[in-house]
Amino acid sequence: MELIDILRQKILPPVPMEIAKYTSSIESDKLLTKPVIEINKAHIIMLAKQDILNKKEATSILKTLSEIPPDMMLDPLFEDVHMQIESYLIGKLGEEVGGRLHVAKSRNDQVATAIRMTLRTYLFEIVQALIEFRTTLLIRCDEYLEAVMPGYTHLQHAQPITIAHHLIAHHDALERNTKRVMDAFSFVNLSPMGACALATTSFNINRELVAELLGFDGLIENSVDAVSSRDFVVDVLADYALIMTNLSRMGEETILWNTSEFSTVILPDTYVSTSSIMPQKRNPVVAELLRAKTAHVYGDLIATLTILKALPLSYNLDLQEITPHLWNSHTVTLTSIKMATGIFKNLKFDIQRWIELVTDDFSTATELTDMLVREYGLPFRTAYTIVGRIVQKVASEGKKMKAITPEMLSTTILGTIDKKIQIDPSKFYAALNPVENVNTKSVIGGPSSIEVLRMKNKRAKKIVTDEAWYNTHISKLKKANSVLCSMIKMLEGGEKTES
Amino acid sequence: MELIDILRQKILPPVPMEIAKYTSSIESDKLLTKPVIEINKAHIIMLAKQDILNKKEATSILKTLSEIPPDMMLDPLFEDVHMQIESYLIGKLGEEVGGRLHVAKSRNDQVATAIRMTLRTYLFEIVQALIEFRTTLLIRCDEYLEAVMPGYTHLQHAQPITIAHHLIAHHDALERNTKRVMDAFSFVNLSPMGACALATTSFNINRELVAELLGFDGLIENSVDAVSSRDFVVDVLADYALIMTNLSRMGEETILWNTSEFSTVILPDTYVSTSSIMPQKRNPVVAELLRAKTAHVYGDLIATLTILKALPLSYNLDLQEITPHLWNSHTVTLTSIKMATGIFKNLKFDIQRWIELVTDDFSTATELTDMLVREYGLPFRTAYTIVGRIVQKVASEGKKMKAITPEMLSTTILGTIDKKIQIDPSKFYAALNPVENVNTKSVIGGPSSIEVLRMKNKRAKKIVTDEAWYNTHISKLKKANSVLCSMIKMLEGGEKTES
Amino acid sequence: MELIDILRQKILPPVPMEIAKYTSSIESDKLLTKPVIEINKAHIIMLAKQDILNKKEATSILKTLSEIPPDMMLDPLFEDVHMQIESYLIGKLGEEVGGRLHVAKSRNDQVATAIRMTLRTYLFEIVQALIEFRTTLLIRCDEYLEAVMPGYTHLQHAQPITIAHHLIAHHDALERNTKRVMDAFSFVNLSPMGACALATTSFNINRELVAELLGFDGLIENSVDAVSSRDFVVDVLADYALIMTNLSRMGEETILWNTSEFSTVILPDTYVSTSSIMPQKRNPVVAELLRAKTAHVYGDLIATLTILKALPLSYNLDLQEITPHLWNSHTVTLTSIKMATGIFKNLKFDIQRWIELVTDDFSTATELTDMLVREYGLPFRTAYTIVGRIVQKVASEGKKMKAITPEMLSTTILGTIDKKIQIDPSKFYAALNPVENVNTKSVIGGPSSIEVLRMKNKRAKKIVTDEAWYNTHISKLKKANSVLCSMIKMLEGGEKTES
Amino acid sequence: MELIDILRQKILPPVPMEIAKYTSSIESDKLLTKPVIEINKAHIIMLAKQDILNKKEATSILKTLSEIPPDMMLDPLFEDVHMQIESYLIGKLGEEVGGRLHVAKSRNDQVATAIRMTLRTYLFEIVQALIEFRTTLLIRCDEYLEAVMPGYTHLQHAQPITIAHHLIAHHDALERNTKRVMDAFSFVNLSPMGACALATTSFNINRELVAELLGFDGLIENSVDAVSSRDFVVDVLADYALIMTNLSRMGEETILWNTSEFSTVILPDTYVSTSSIMPQKRNPVVAELLRAKTAHVYGDLIATLTILKALPLSYNLDLQEITPHLWNSHTVTLTSIKMATGIFKNLKFDIQRWIELVTDDFSTATELTDMLVREYGLPFRTAYTIVGRIVQKVASEGKKMKAITPEMLSTTILGTIDKKIQIDPSKFYAALNPVENVNTKSVIGGPSSIEVLRMKNKRAKKIVTDEAWYNTHISKLKKANSVLCSMIKMLEGGEKTES
Repeated sequence: MELIDILRQKILPPVPMEIAKYTSSIESDKLLTKPVIEINKAHIIMLAKQDILNKKEATSILKTLSEIPPDMMLDPLFEDVHMQIESYLIGKLGEEVGGRLHVAKSRNDQVATAIRMTLRTYLFEIVQALIEFRTTLLIRCDEYLEAVMPGYTHLQHAQPITIAHHLIAHHDALERNTKRVMDAFSFVNLSPMGACALATTSFNINRELVAELLGFDGLIENSVDAVSSRDFVVDVLADYALIMTNLSRMGEETILWNTSEFSTVILPDTYVSTSSIMPQKRNPVVAELLRAKTAHVYGDLIATLTILKALPLSYNLDLQEITPHLWNSHTVTLTSIKMATGIFKNLKFDIQRWIELVTDDFSTATELTDMLVREYGLPFRTAYTIVGRIVQKVASEGKKMKAITPEMLSTTILGTIDKKIQIDPSKFYAALNPVENVNTKSVIGGPSSIEVLRMKNKRAKKIVTDEAWYNTHISKLKKANSVLCSMIKMLEGGEKTES
Repeated sequence: MELIDILRQKILPPVPMEIAKYTSSIESDKLLTKPVIEINKAHIIMLAKQDILNKKEATSILKTLSEIPPDMMLDPLFEDVHMQIESYLIGKLGEEVGGRLHVAKSRNDQVATAIRMTLRTYLFEIVQALIEFRTTLLIRCDEYLEAVMPGYTHLQHAQPITIAHHLIAHHDALERNTKRVMDAFSFVNLSPMGACALATTSFNINRELVAELLGFDGLIENSVDAVSSRDFVVDVLADYALIMTNLSRMGEETILWNTSEFSTVILPDTYVSTSSIMPQKRNPVVAELLRAKTAHVYGDLIATLTILKALPLSYNLDLQEITPHLWNSHTVTLTSIKMATGIFKNLKFDIQRWIELVTDDFSTATELTDMLVREYGLPFRTAYTIVGRIVQKVASEGKKMKAITPEMLSTTILGTIDKKIQIDPSKFYAALNPVENVNTKSVIGGPSSIEVLRMKNKRAKKIVTDEAWYNTHISKLKKANSVLCSMIKMLEGGEKTES
Repeated sequence: MELIDILRQKILPPVPMEIAKYTSSIESDKLLTKPVIEINKAHIIMLAKQDILNKKEATSILKTLSEIPPDMMLDPLFEDVHMQIESYLIGKLGEEVGGRLHVAKSRNDQVATAIRMTLRTYLFEIVQALIEFRTTLLIRCDEYLEAVMPGYTHLQHAQPITIAHHLIAHHDALERNTKRVMDAFSFVNLSPMGACALATTSFNINRELVAELLGFDGLIENSVDAVSSRDFVVDVLADYALIMTNLSRMGEETILWNTSEFSTVILPDTYVSTSSIMPQKRNPVVAELLRAKTAHVYGDLIATLTILKALPLSYNLDLQEITPHLWNSHTVTLTSIKMATGIFKNLKFDIQRWIELVTDDFSTATELTDMLVREYGLPFRTAYTIVGRIVQKVASEGKKMKAITPEMLSTTILGTIDKKIQIDPSKFYAALNPVENVNTKSVIGGPSSIEVLRMKNKRAKKIVTDEAWYNTHISKLKKANSVLCSMIKMLEGGEKTES
Repeated sequence: MELIDILRQKILPPVPMEIAKYTSSIESDKLLTKPVIEINKAHIIMLAKQDILNKKEATSILKTLSEIPPDMMLDPLFEDVHMQIESYLIGKLGEEVGGRLHVAKSRNDQVATAIRMTLRTYLFEIVQALIEFRTTLLIRCDEYLEAVMPGYTHLQHAQPITIAHHLIAHHDALERNTKRVMDAFSFVNLSPMGACALATTSFNINRELVAELLGFDGLIENSVDAVSSRDFVVDVLADYALIMTNLSRMGEETILWNTSEFSTVILPDTYVSTSSIMPQKRNPVVAELLRAKTAHVYGDLIATLTILKALPLSYNLDLQEITPHLWNSHTVTLTSIKMATGIFKNLKFDIQRWIELVTDDFSTATELTDMLVREYGLPFRTAYTIVGRIVQKVASEGKKMKAITPEMLSTTILGTIDKKIQIDPSKFYAALNPVENVNTKSVIGGPSSIEVLRMKNKRAKKIVTDEAWYNTHISKLKKANSVLCSMIKMLEGGEKTES
């Protein structure tokens, strides 16, 4: 069956292939075929219910719609998937029946609806992938509750923390990402159907019914708004950009830790490549791409905003150019979350090397300062100055924190504030021991193993809540779909008994 | 009193002015002075409660903090406002007391906290301005419920709608903007205080107390996360970008409507400028800037994302460069909302010109098609083809819709599908009358005056809800502040009676 | 013949398909196959000349390279095209011969070289397309040398110009675009080959010979720089962004002119589409996409910059993610130039409508002001005030410029500066006549038909110069390629006689 | 003297302060005051020469213009600096004389001209700063010609290079940056004056004379183009973005090298800060800001492009919003070049640590492979496999390259390709010695000290050429200015003698 361009052919001359290619959205419409078929089904059911179509016509159309494969080959001859499907119907059923498909709707409302339907399943995928990643991080925490590492600020050793504490920092950013995606979902899952081209229709349609059959939570009410708005896309792209930003930070850390200078992790073989001429290389390629691919999402976000800027209402073809950015960013973000999960599931932290680093540095200086404040009543800024001086002196001799003694400290205090203080060695050495040091930090959010364990358990519970959100929403969609199916069957049944 | 650089002076040599200027955040810290003073007060109260500071020291510090004017001159000699305030304390009270201010905190948690405090009041301003704008649009609706205008797609006349219907489309985008800002607020209003540099502290601090006294809804718990994260800034900037995108679309429409070709609005004098050499010009300068300034926010958003990309945890100085983008975008967005409100409050729509435009075009063609479907049972696509042909014919003769007669329609039907149909003139002319046309579209979200009135009333109720949100949150902040003040008084009182 | 992963298989375990897909550049390597084969040929010739390979080995390899089709199917199993081609060689010739292909080179220098080779042919395409567009615009000028239109500032009628004058403004932006692409070419056409991984090689290679055989103008000398730099990509993307910016401005104007309000042009049928429900629409879809697709290039530019930011030297896999942005922007830009050329080749300007617009407005007010200055010696600002008053008065009565009379002007002068001036009607009406008005503006760059004709002729000559640039560079490449071919033949000949 | 708003006051009502602030460009006009005064002078001279002004009027105006301080306080009451200066003239000289300043020009051409004048001096500053930085890098090369360091790819040790070789890689990127700025200059230094609002003028002006007196190299000829184009700004911003990209890469390397893990450099004290609670920190703050501030320029670039997108010709107020981005990016870029120069002038490379790193790794593996190819005739891919195996084995035992012996190599060869090869220890150990290794790489662009010295000397000569460009252009501007001054004097003289 050869399809014809029902739209253009009858009114305008055919366009040369290069113009057709330039203007067609067919390539990125692949992801819309399935929702467009669903929309057409729900629309036909509604038309029949409202007596805009008779049951016989409705049944024929529904049957033919059911025969279209969701992966049907799209033809750039058509401007888009909408016209191809209608052409298919007309080709199969003749214009007398197939020509009734497009009553009381338009491509403008239909494409907005279809994008929202594909996007909501994508958001589910993202939520699921984020939950999986968060779960992975929490599992790894158990292994590293006591594993001390230098906490970095300005990429300088600052104070000792634990690997588990560090992993929870990443987890928490992802937990917020999950929440943001859920917030975005509430803007996505609204139905534009019935807005038609921009002005609704004089047919007595039922917009709520269509929305319900398609699993939407409500309507984008105003019809001009319904076809003009793509703010929900920007929303999602901004969320994706933030997710990728967080992954890029993990990617960067992985690359650093994997250098021969840091040597604090061992990357699983499947996540590194080697060189075509340097056989010794263990290039952290997946981590590098987590970092680099972040930029794709930034590019998609800025391109989408730029397209929307200064567009007069209502629909303009410019909107068509937004969709490929959305699909592209989704693929990048989803696969990147999975890759990052894989890395963090399999990364081996070299505990020994981490403790070595934190022992052979100055990262306990702050705790020594705090000890002077707490135990000997010095003002913080004074204690800070004293420790600063002793650290500088020791460092200038090429030595590290562990070279400092209680006596040296007493001497420096005397030299700085002319006060004689005898330092208790046990308190002194406790401050300098990174493990003890970490465990004194047991306030909320701190690195002590008890506190990190508490945080981990709290977050595990939150994951259960987030999974419940996911399950509830998935169920709702399934249920809507089964209602749609049974209404189709009922109509067919009714039609059959009638005939 | 000359302040000294307490930080650097004691440990490192002074830096040349050009380096100091390059690295200082003093300029954009102006907006942080007030919150930093508040934070210091809450922190001191907490330290006193936890017996980390004695009451006398606490009282002296609190008194001196109260004397700092929130608009104190900031000096680029200091790296930032945090050091200047501590230096001020030490200058006033001596290091023995003033040097105790900075115990159990760091600039890293303090700056994150202060940014969040300034930002939340900014979000309140935005919510308030959006509510004001939405109210303005709804008020204008009443004037234009029956005022027909051409609805545009592709900037072509599509179908008639009303001005009120069009205004509600803009309103609804702003309603979603308001909701997004509220969502963002929930990520902003969390306290990092107590995270210290990145690892909390071994002092027995009470993070929740500080958070409560400062009006926060909770903590950013994990201390590494607390000092490393600026996702809340991206969130807000993305929301601002969306607001500006919507304003830019209104700006563009205003510019178009104000051309001599459209001539559909009269801009108030205060919103136009004239030319230095062309006295006849009424340049829509404010509308042009709504459009142009949108780009500033896009630039701030992309710059912020770029700064965050691939930053290893925890704090890096790069984060300092984000803040000016936030402040800049806030100013642009807030003033732009106000400007747009002003334009739409005062814009005069030339109802006569609008109706002229919609009468002298083809925008009722769809309704004619629908009438053929509804009244004469033609398949939509067939009716579409028939109307398409007649429109093309008439247009090629340089005429418009109103040149079509029922007889011409009958003839075209006959010529197209070989069917004789007598067209009822009353139905025919009803379809062609833009006012009647609009009023047949009374489905949910449609342009009929009854439906638009219903939408308007519903939205007015939503504004009341959003105002309640605003009032609740403002009250909460005020209450927290009054608790903080009374605790300061109690401490001072206690201190006095003790001494 | 089954190819094996020569790189990984021998040293590291195979990677799961999802990781292979995430890390492979195979998809965007399609455009590199041809240059990579050429590079390998030139490299082998050089190795033979330098006695690093013997002639027999070289000949076998060259023969096998010649058999690879430039459109060979790329397999995501390979990390990239480089490994696939070497694998092919080894599969065909055995490792004893095929394993010698990769001596004294690396994928790092090879991919940089191949990108530059594909890109330079792309730049030629762009230069050619820009020349074609500029030529089109100049041809259209001849038709519209005398056709008056309102010149717009702030989208308000400012002063009369001609259509030809307006078209030359667009032409000149494109002329600068051409120059910028040529400037970019000089940074692109330099050879990295011989840099190897980053440190050159201890083999006695001849980098200049390889560069010459591949048609390069010189070397990227420093080997670390050669593999680390992608500044030439940013350069080209910035040029593409500027080209698209200019096209978007033309697209916007076309959309405006095509509205029923402006109605100043008729778009050719092939450049408009119609609506699925509104048969009267003539949607300027190609022009809308000129506008929208501009954003893709902005996105690609910002993504590329973001990838490059803060990358330590030398090669990082991040660079791989830049290439698809370059190819994408090239396609968008090249097809968009062609589409814009098509529009402007076929656009019909409605001369009558333009003159109507400019007659029925105030755009001659400036000339009236200037006339007062020139003929009656008034200070400009005084004359400006006088004309401003009269214009305001007339406009407030709903009339236009043509309602003003010499007498009204005299009266206003008298009322403003208390001076009696008798206005010469012939001078007065000359100022108000848009055609005469335009022709008085014959200074360099002005709209008078004589001056525009002069500009047009000058630009036509510049096009000849730019075509010469194009031809010279194309010839150079062809010549280099024929030298390469004859050296291959000589080597094969020498080899044959030797054996 | 109170200035009045000559523009608005006479035709339109005054605007409220908040609207005035929103629309005024006064803040970023500060940088335009000086060129606007110059332009007015040149314009007046030209008007006098062309007998459009009489000498007396011209002389009065010139005298008053000379009295305006280039740093005059700008008042937001005025829309811009242009109106303020004219108001000043009228205030001083009365409208009869001062009111003649603005004849045959407009703010549209004047602002474009002034931006170009400020920008060209900025480009000179950038060229000078880049030359200074390049010179600094070359000077440092001399110290480190023999200093071996690991060359990195994927941040993994790849092959040994030298510090001097690495520095030249950075130099070369900066050399290209310089060339690009010079290319951009040729688009900047063209005069729009005489384009007036968009259509030139009917006065017989001499555009070339004004251009010459202001030191321009020519005209932006077409008057519509002259006031509509800001492509030269995008050009410059793209160049600035590339400069910052390069600086960000140096910043990133500095940060890494300064970690305690790398410990390969010592940063001068003035370029580090310390922590408010961690006295041991040496935070590389200036390097961090080189990295972060790069994002500002990206933001400015994308904002500028976004403003320009889809703007119909000719001048729109949107263009006003571009200028602050240009000034901001200039300041960021210029100060950043200077900061980076300071870092690299004073950075101490720890030669001992670098050599240690490169000795204790696998970075000589490639040279070992190449040695097997060169000395024992193995195919490259075979040698690669052999070395790959031996490296993997040694690495799995926790050892490094230096643990490999000639005998182990022979054994591995035998095991891999069943061939007995006796390895010459002298050749073997030469390959493994990083210093000898580097010096074998003496092909063009390689790291051998001889080749790096040659590269350095060549680049030093190029700096002389670039300095000549700078001097020539500076002289030209000075000369133009002195011609302008003497013409003013002559006119005054003429005037005096006449009177």
